[in-house]
Amino acid sequence: MEVQWEKKFAQRMQKMKSSTIRELLKVTEQPEMISFAGGLPAPEVFPIEHVDIATHKVLTEHGEQALQYGATEGYRPLRELLAQRLSHGKLQLTVDNVLIVSGSQQALDLLGKIIIDPGDRIVVEAPTYMGALQAWNAYEAAYITVAADEQGMQTDYLEEALLQNPKYVYVLPNFQNPTGVTLTEERRRVMVQQARRYGVPIVEDDPYGELRFEGEHLPSLLSLEGELQQGSYQGNGIYLGTFSKTMAPGMRLGWVIAPSQVIGKLVQAKQGVDLHTATFTQMIAYELLKDGFLDEHVHLIRRVYQERRDAMLAAMEEYFPEEVKWTHPEGGMFLWVTLPEGSDATELLKQALERNVVFVPGESFYPNGGGQNTMRLNYSHDESERIREGIGRLARVLRTSFVAR
Amino acid sequence: MEVQWEKKFAQRMQKMKSSTIRELLKVTEQPEMISFAGGLPAPEVFPIEHVDIATHKVLTEHGEQALQYGATEGYRPLRELLAQRLSHGKLQLTVDNVLIVSGSQQALDLLGKIIIDPGDRIVVEAPTYMGALQAWNAYEAAYITVAADEQGMQTDYLEEALLQNPKYVYVLPNFQNPTGVTLTEERRRVMVQQARRYGVPIVEDDPYGELRFEGEHLPSLLSLEGELQQGSYQGNGIYLGTFSKTMAPGMRLGWVIAPSQVIGKLVQAKQGVDLHTATFTQMIAYELLKDGFLDEHVHLIRRVYQERRDAMLAAMEEYFPEEVKWTHPEGGMFLWVTLPEGSDATELLKQALERNVVFVPGESFYPNGGGQNTMRLNYSHDESERIREGIGRLARVLRTSFVAR
Repeated sequence: MEVQWEKKFAQRMQKMKSSTIRELLKVTEQPEMISFAGGLPAPEVFPIEHVDIATHKVLTEHGEQALQYGATEGYRPLRELLAQRLSHGKLQLTVDNVLIVSGSQQALDLLGKIIIDPGDRIVVEAPTYMGALQAWNAYEAAYITVAADEQGMQTDYLEEALLQNPKYVYVLPNFQNPTGVTLTEERRRVMVQQARRYGVPIVEDDPYGELRFEGEHLPSLLSLEGELQQGSYQGNGIYLGTFSKTMAPGMRLGWVIAPSQVIGKLVQAKQGVDLHTATFTQMIAYELLKDGFLDEHVHLIRRVYQERRDAMLAAMEEYFPEEVKWTHPEGGMFLWVTLPEGSDATELLKQALERNVVFVPGESFYPNGGGQNTMRLNYSHDESERIREGIGRLARVLRTSFVAR
Repeated sequence: MEVQWEKKFAQRMQKMKSSTIRELLKVTEQPEMISFAGGLPAPEVFPIEHVDIATHKVLTEHGEQALQYGATEGYRPLRELLAQRLSHGKLQLTVDNVLIVSGSQQALDLLGKIIIDPGDRIVVEAPTYMGALQAWNAYEAAYITVAADEQGMQTDYLEEALLQNPKYVYVLPNFQNPTGVTLTEERRRVMVQQARRYGVPIVEDDPYGELRFEGEHLPSLLSLEGELQQGSYQGNGIYLGTFSKTMAPGMRLGWVIAPSQVIGKLVQAKQGVDLHTATFTQMIAYELLKDGFLDEHVHLIRRVYQERRDAMLAAMEEYFPEEVKWTHPEGGMFLWVTLPEGSDATELLKQALERNVVFVPGESFYPNGGGQNTMRLNYSHDESERIREGIGRLARVLRTSFVAR
């Protein structure tokens, strides 16, 4: 029997293909495989014991509340604490600027739901975060790409993009996924000013901002927005944060900072989507955040990731052919490799799989094509020893392939 | 400055108005107010201690996995256990028939995402669950309503609805929200056969099925579907379940049972929506389900809800004017009151608020209008004493209003 939903599915789902990363991750479950493909935090640094203690406290002191339905906006003390923590200088946030979401991926979906009509244009960096494309493809978004270099999005080309009437600009300013590159302060200021001039909102996705292990913290686009106004926040910046990298991704907790009228619209959309984010996990996160534990804990994560990044960079320096270039991230979880023009990273992946090492071909991160000679490597998940071994295997693939050409 | 997303919002959000229930719930936070408006489980029966013990076990034994990213499909042992528990007779389910979602509300949203194009028709009972309407209004669904009586949807009128080319039939067969009515077995069989004849899927939403405190358990539409086929499940039924009523709504955990190809599509949609449901809470639920605890615990919930239903029915019998009629639910959390023709429950609500008692006017549950003389009352949340007091207050409102006419 032909089930009627097939039809629509066939049309709509062409743009919602199961992502390359997901398919690759299936392969990586074999223990002999060294994977640079995923985006997994190091499980050794998860605060397991502290989550256990916080859970016990929440259940003992507020068990009925923790297990009951809650407000769509989120657990109010957590929202208040986030508003207070993110207020800075002239950027003054209140509880009405904060929505708790089920991981910041949900914020991407909700933004699509309230903003994107089929064919609407979104300005993105090229390359950009694949999960954002996946969320917005479901709403049939179109993308205007602005190339990025070692300093992030090339803002010289931004005005041209803004003239094409986009719905918003999407940017990952810190240790970007997939490149590991950080947007310079100068370019941040240019971006904020130009976006204001053209009345185009900026959606700033910042999952890795707290994972800086080198160099100086740069102001968020949101805080630069905040400098340009008086009173409570009514700018055109939206900021997405998450507990996935500082606490645990398995809790699925993130947040959105936005003008209160935008939060109101996201709340209406979220009601129909999942009523609210789990009260239970929100209250646990609040416990871990309020007493300063997470602020201490992030030092450990930074130390571990820095060591692993160093191991990866050192091994690449030692093993990789000299035609290959790569980024030097100052934080986060990823770096980006550029092979000589004409190389095909997807082709290389097949050879890499035979040597039990895996990565994500860069073209997956380009919504409008390009990046065939690039790849994303994750360094947060495996220990340094294993990273070194994996880079050695990958180097052998590269050398074989370059000789073959 | 005019922010560009306002425009689309104004168009789209007319159909995503903040629900009446939500607005009412804000009022009910005052302690003197007796609320029959919400849909909250009794917090006294939440298994707080068992959740604490299960959490400690999960974190101690599988902490790294519980806090890490997981598969979009859900935690595999939980999916396997659900497949096994719901397999019955000829209905043979495997892990590929199961998707874990962030509360069954998310299943409603995902179904809309993969199935509904603007203007698509959905067959629903009149009245029906407001949250489903809220989820599907965002996809600009249209509704074909089939009236319900004390035996559930009037299947005599179903064929006429099926002839209008709907995408699916949505039904809550057990102790329906809002009416508390249960679809008879005879009508279930008619529904399954007619839906098959016209090739229209049935979406069966069953949050309350385990909360039967009177009468005999009836087979699910899914299991009746299953009887009509051989081998692994490939029918046109979709079943939505939840842990919100048997464990705790604050965990936000539900599941979808469907043919594997439909699950595959829902998984692709869910990837972009929130990556996956929290590993942490899924593993806790698995602990509570696998050792039989929840099967024991539900006896307590049934006992408490039965007592409260009895208290409400007795008070209504004693206090309500005789022109007023109501349903006698055999389980679940709600009952439905019908006032004489020409009564306006929304008008009555204003008077009820003055007497510190609150309910949901029935018209909110009719997508195409109607039900002005009806109201939904919840009996699961408050203790019997308070229910009795609230019904007394409501009776005074009714008597005053009826005299005034």
